Amino acid sequence: MQTIDVPEINLPRVVIIGGGFGGMQLVKGLKNKEVQVVLLDRNNYHTFQPLLYQVATAGLEPDSIAFPIRKIFKEYQNFHFRMANVENVDHTIKTIYTNIGSLSYDYLIIATGSKTNFFGNDQIMKYGMRLKTVVQALDVRSLMLQNFEKALLSSEINSRESRMNFVIVGGGPTGVELAGALGELKNHVLPNDYPELDVRRMQIHLIEAGPKLLAGLSSISSDKAVEYLKKLNVNVWLNTRVTDYDGTVVKTNINKTILAKNLVWSAGVMGNAVPGLKENQFDRAHRILVNEYNEVAEHDSIFAIGDVAAMVTKDTPKGHPMVAPVAMQQGNLLAKNLLKRIKGKSQQKFVYHDKGSMATIGRNKAVVEVAKLKWQGAFAWFIWMFVHLISLVGYRNKAIVLVNWLWNYFNYDRGIRLIIRPFVRDKNKKEPVETL
Amino acid sequence: MQTIDVPEINLPRVVIIGGGFGGMQLVKGLKNKEVQVVLLDRNNYHTFQPLLYQVATAGLEPDSIAFPIRKIFKEYQNFHFRMANVENVDHTIKTIYTNIGSLSYDYLIIATGSKTNFFGNDQIMKYGMRLKTVVQALDVRSLMLQNFEKALLSSEINSRESRMNFVIVGGGPTGVELAGALGELKNHVLPNDYPELDVRRMQIHLIEAGPKLLAGLSSISSDKAVEYLKKLNVNVWLNTRVTDYDGTVVKTNINKTILAKNLVWSAGVMGNAVPGLKENQFDRAHRILVNEYNEVAEHDSIFAIGDVAAMVTKDTPKGHPMVAPVAMQQGNLLAKNLLKRIKGKSQQKFVYHDKGSMATIGRNKAVVEVAKLKWQGAFAWFIWMFVHLISLVGYRNKAIVLVNWLWNYFNYDRGIRLIIRPFVRDKNKKEPVETL
Repeated sequence: MQTIDVPEINLPRVVIIGGGFGGMQLVKGLKNKEVQVVLLDRNNYHTFQPLLYQVATAGLEPDSIAFPIRKIFKEYQNFHFRMANVENVDHTIKTIYTNIGSLSYDYLIIATGSKTNFFGNDQIMKYGMRLKTVVQALDVRSLMLQNFEKALLSSEINSRESRMNFVIVGGGPTGVELAGALGELKNHVLPNDYPELDVRRMQIHLIEAGPKLLAGLSSISSDKAVEYLKKLNVNVWLNTRVTDYDGTVVKTNINKTILAKNLVWSAGVMGNAVPGLKENQFDRAHRILVNEYNEVAEHDSIFAIGDVAAMVTKDTPKGHPMVAPVAMQQGNLLAKNLLKRIKGKSQQKFVYHDKGSMATIGRNKAVVEVAKLKWQGAFAWFIWMFVHLISLVGYRNKAIVLVNWLWNYFNYDRGIRLIIRPFVRDKNKKEPVETL
Repeated sequence: MQTIDVPEINLPRVVIIGGGFGGMQLVKGLKNKEVQVVLLDRNNYHTFQPLLYQVATAGLEPDSIAFPIRKIFKEYQNFHFRMANVENVDHTIKTIYTNIGSLSYDYLIIATGSKTNFFGNDQIMKYGMRLKTVVQALDVRSLMLQNFEKALLSSEINSRESRMNFVIVGGGPTGVELAGALGELKNHVLPNDYPELDVRRMQIHLIEAGPKLLAGLSSISSDKAVEYLKKLNVNVWLNTRVTDYDGTVVKTNINKTILAKNLVWSAGVMGNAVPGLKENQFDRAHRILVNEYNEVAEHDSIFAIGDVAAMVTKDTPKGHPMVAPVAMQQGNLLAKNLLKRIKGKSQQKFVYHDKGSMATIGRNKAVVEVAKLKWQGAFAWFIWMFVHLISLVGYRNKAIVLVNWLWNYFNYDRGIRLIIRPFVRDKNKKEPVETL
């Protein structure tokens, strides 16, 4: 196998797998320090995942929530980026193997995030849509619009309505935000586009296995979310599990059956680790077990941060929540700790600073919790938009997203209803290789 | 075969195939008149083709030069849209056949535009890129960026440079504008993205078979275009034909050989007619012969407009140029003529009003000709931008394009350098079915 061609210099080589929130922060913390940084990602861009649902619902361009990695780090002297899929890690010789060659490391950081967890249900995996990548979001957008076009061709009422119906499984932020956005599409946009269809008969179902939506938030917020969703004509099912799906019929554990050609599965995520680690290094969600320095035990000089890491301690028996702030804080601290470690100084343990949570349901409808403060409604909605806008990478992206949001707000519109590449279901679809 | 389900009403049914510049104008001219209008297109959006080259060169989002057809016509009472591929026309029973069913018509208008003409060269067709659709533009963008990523992996100099090199065949507006945009990418953007590559060694070649660029413009403008391109380090080859291409080696008729993994063929277009018309109804460029009312002879109630139509008369022995204004003016007039014809009134012959031509090469570098007036340089560039901006469909698109242009102007940037879906060459690629 050929070697990935990066300069051999007399500095420790830090190899980072994954350009998500954690990996990016880590690279920033190592800017022009006494290390060589090599970042690998299967894409040439960073994805701002919290807004994927707006791409799926025609509110934003895919290009405005993605940012070229090379552009972010163009002024970094000690930085090298390679687009690659990591296929294996051999910690005994400190080398990784990828589709473009092998690479030795002094320190390896696994920041590969999470992927959709179907909990072994092959049927749902085959027919359900995901919402973790830009391409998946575009596929959801295309599928929905294609199904509306096909609904026009069907004179049989069940067949027609199953194409309009939408089931979202999982009442976390992604599920709630997607359901709300679909509710607004149904109320304001689709009736104009499809005057020949009775869009009022379109059903949107949000199905949650637990007793409340937005499990990470208080009951006040999650009750409010249910209230907002009902205003948008979303059917919310709590304590309900989806047990099977064949592409049309959604079966549940409460004998409720729904006909829907559109189903998005956002009911679980799992660690998206690279192959080559020992089996005993994982928790139940396939996250890599790490200590308070994000170090992987028994693997010399390997670290994991963010969604893919489970820092199981006395205070955090299940690890941290799989959210962007944890990844960013871990990336940030690990940069400092690596530099300390190289200099032989003592390192600092990770402590998560929870800055709060939020979710938006629709225009003037959001819930925000910061420490003990809780807001709902229009003010919360503005906080949500502000926080997401300033968190987006790049001024061009911020400007484009702002133009779109203003446009959508004043026109009750979602302008990007394009089927650029039709979604075609791969009949032989298996779990896609997502090692990175 | 099932019938496409549109209401049977007591009005003449006008079926239009193709939502390009001509088809759109025709629908607008028939707004809420005493006809039923059915528009078919293989996409659910209208494409603003003049800016495709900016999508290919990472300057604009694909979504801002495409506009959902249903949105444009949402207030049209007598209008129906269906996403369909037309597979055949049987004029004897006034019926068309599509992938979603058959449809009878009283008047059929073929407005299917043009497609890339490789003049029978199968090798170039197999390995050359096109630039007629949004998907093709995205593929060019992905291929170029993928090749730069791969250039980093190659230590052999010919292999590395062939991945950076770009050949554009055809010196019409598309070729000239694409070459200029690549020149600016080379000068301002790629060196920052790829500090490890010697981007100065990237070669951009524009190859034109005729004696001048921009054949439709005066020598003053085309000489200026050559001068501008040379300033941007584009190699311009006139009186030169590309004779073969195997994916790497570009052969020409002057014994000049170029190594380039990127080749865009913009050297020819041909009518993109639907199957089912008699063979004697076409000109040499496979355009449908029409009379001065855009009527197809021997085919009762069939019309063709725009690029796909060749109105061969004494004054226009080769038909009209294949440009948007011809299509728009023909669509406009045909709407009036159809209504006159239905009422038994006499129709008006088509006369093309040439409002001028223009091409942009780079920042402050454009050529514009209107009647006998000619401008070059910064003023011409502003005219070019203004005309394209106001011609774009939709205020959201105008705003997004303006933000991008301002961003690109002040930052010497092209921000959208994303490989969202990698381009994978289909080894078995044949001429794709482009009946619509």
